[in-house]
Amino acid sequence: MRVFHISMPDEALRPVLQEKIDNLNKPKGSMGRLEELALRIGLIQQTTAPELCHPCHLLFGADHGIEREGVSVSPRDVTWQQMINFSRGGGGVNMFCRQHGFKLFIVDMGVDHDLSSYPGIFDCKVARGTLNFLHEAAMTAAEADRCVETGISFVDECHKEGCNVLCIGEMGIGNTSPSSVWMHLLTGIPLDHCIGSGAGLTGTGVRHKYEVLREAVERFRQSGCRRTPEEILRRFGGFEMAAAVGAMLRAAELHMIVLVDGFIMTACMLMASRLEPAVLEYAIFGHEGNEPGHRLMLDALHARGLLRLGMRLGEGTGALCAYPLLQSAVRMMNEMNDFKTAHITKYF
Amino acid sequence: MRVFHISMPDEALRPVLQEKIDNLNKPKGSMGRLEELALRIGLIQQTTAPELCHPCHLLFGADHGIEREGVSVSPRDVTWQQMINFSRGGGGVNMFCRQHGFKLFIVDMGVDHDLSSYPGIFDCKVARGTLNFLHEAAMTAAEADRCVETGISFVDECHKEGCNVLCIGEMGIGNTSPSSVWMHLLTGIPLDHCIGSGAGLTGTGVRHKYEVLREAVERFRQSGCRRTPEEILRRFGGFEMAAAVGAMLRAAELHMIVLVDGFIMTACMLMASRLEPAVLEYAIFGHEGNEPGHRLMLDALHARGLLRLGMRLGEGTGALCAYPLLQSAVRMMNEMNDFKTAHITKYF
Repeated sequence: MRVFHISMPDEALRPVLQEKIDNLNKPKGSMGRLEELALRIGLIQQTTAPELCHPCHLLFGADHGIEREGVSVSPRDVTWQQMINFSRGGGGVNMFCRQHGFKLFIVDMGVDHDLSSYPGIFDCKVARGTLNFLHEAAMTAAEADRCVETGISFVDECHKEGCNVLCIGEMGIGNTSPSSVWMHLLTGIPLDHCIGSGAGLTGTGVRHKYEVLREAVERFRQSGCRRTPEEILRRFGGFEMAAAVGAMLRAAELHMIVLVDGFIMTACMLMASRLEPAVLEYAIFGHEGNEPGHRLMLDALHARGLLRLGMRLGEGTGALCAYPLLQSAVRMMNEMNDFKTAHITKYF
Repeated sequence: MRVFHISMPDEALRPVLQEKIDNLNKPKGSMGRLEELALRIGLIQQTTAPELCHPCHLLFGADHGIEREGVSVSPRDVTWQQMINFSRGGGGVNMFCRQHGFKLFIVDMGVDHDLSSYPGIFDCKVARGTLNFLHEAAMTAAEADRCVETGISFVDECHKEGCNVLCIGEMGIGNTSPSSVWMHLLTGIPLDHCIGSGAGLTGTGVRHKYEVLREAVERFRQSGCRRTPEEILRRFGGFEMAAAVGAMLRAAELHMIVLVDGFIMTACMLMASRLEPAVLEYAIFGHEGNEPGHRLMLDALHARGLLRLGMRLGEGTGALCAYPLLQSAVRMMNEMNDFKTAHITKYF
């Protein structure tokens, strides 16, 4: 896999940003997490007057071999059906992209259906779904590289158009399973704490999912494979997830803000951070779901989501809903008077 | 005080709304609190295709006699200074009104400064601050009525312009004190649980505030006054708070959505609900602050805030930041395909 060169934001600007924030005409700290956001965005962009330009959303779709083990309550067909629905503007991701002015790229990374005739869908299909990781590696190293390169190329395209804030979403029935395994293997958190109900599994379904994933992890352990992030990525990962990892790393390399969605995208950011830790400096986590596993993963990343709305749709919808808060933080830096300009007695 | 006639939304629409929401192309419940919001807005507007029209923000400002007891860390002058700052567009409330397309009305209900020469400020001054409720009633019954009527008249103006969603904010140094007393007397929650640090009091300051408010409540109890909501309103209330109560009740009477801000505006909604309980059917709570008292008050109203960002600026800023979520909920109802239209296998 290619090497990414992600620089840490220059910390010299931090006290300058903090001083500006503290001198806006409000009690110190009274804008709460908007102040943290303003600081983070200012550091990423290395300016006290940040801007959000040409926001883009990458929606990667793919199917998963592990779905054949009955780990998901939804049938595989929903992946391609939803991809077509997105291409016609009728999905959750579409309406929020319209609401917040995001340019949407719908990318077929490996959906188990011929989508090549749909003009709204970029055809980057690697295969019609990954292999079943209960029995073999989900993808080859070459396929993983190809996914990462595809992620990179879309980010490059966005960046060329002037984008400096990127959101990423996924569509892939069954993809909470690879996400749970990545989380388990990359953090050491016990597997049963990494598994939830996905889109709606009940108790028996969750137990079955646990048994399947436990067995898959056990076989991986016994295979003698090295347990590097790269190996874990290709053994279990989805094509859409590998593309997201590549996109996140490239976006950070280009000093773009990466707006991270729920459980699956957080797992991708976790993977990205194990490949290149500095990527986290560019990440803003939009939504914190109700699944206990998501909270644990955010804890492991020392992160918190901006919203807690109990959303669990995927597609990047939770992150998109958080976008206006980034705009609010940026407005605060550019439009709020400071005490001196406003002729206000400095208060606390 | 005038009687408000607030009708309960017709519950016959609830199952129709729920069925529409459940048939949108997403796992059932997967939009989390956006689904609750859509249901609430649909009930208020009595339609399965809700709209948000011409949003307006009323910013009421006034000073408080109790401020003379040193219950606030900020000096009284900040009230008028901020009002002028708002009239010039440089405050927190301004930038979020611009961001979300709210028409802003800045109303002087009783600021201790002559603001009549500022064209951006509506002059509805009742007096230059309330009286000190440690010693006497903050306002007369006639003054309270006048404030409520002013609140009504602004809502009528907004409604005439086509507004169906109203946000309300306040500016008034010291107004967490009357809010805490209202909360204590209207809910029975012990006074010390109703008091926080306001805009930045430290431990000693909070204890002093508690002693002052405890004494004021004790004197009120011994005065033999009836402890009706109306009496509590005028004994402790601020002019800006009484105006907000009137505005909330009138907005509900006109079937408008009322977007409620933090601690002080929640205290006003609590007061409004004690005058006319049906007002709560029209309330959406935008932001849940870190002050334990705010959580307790929301619990007492069986409500939860949409955002939890640790904001404590007032002015209505927390509620304004939540507005895009209302827009998201409305988009969901109008733009998201259902399973049939999208040709998607219904999943869970």
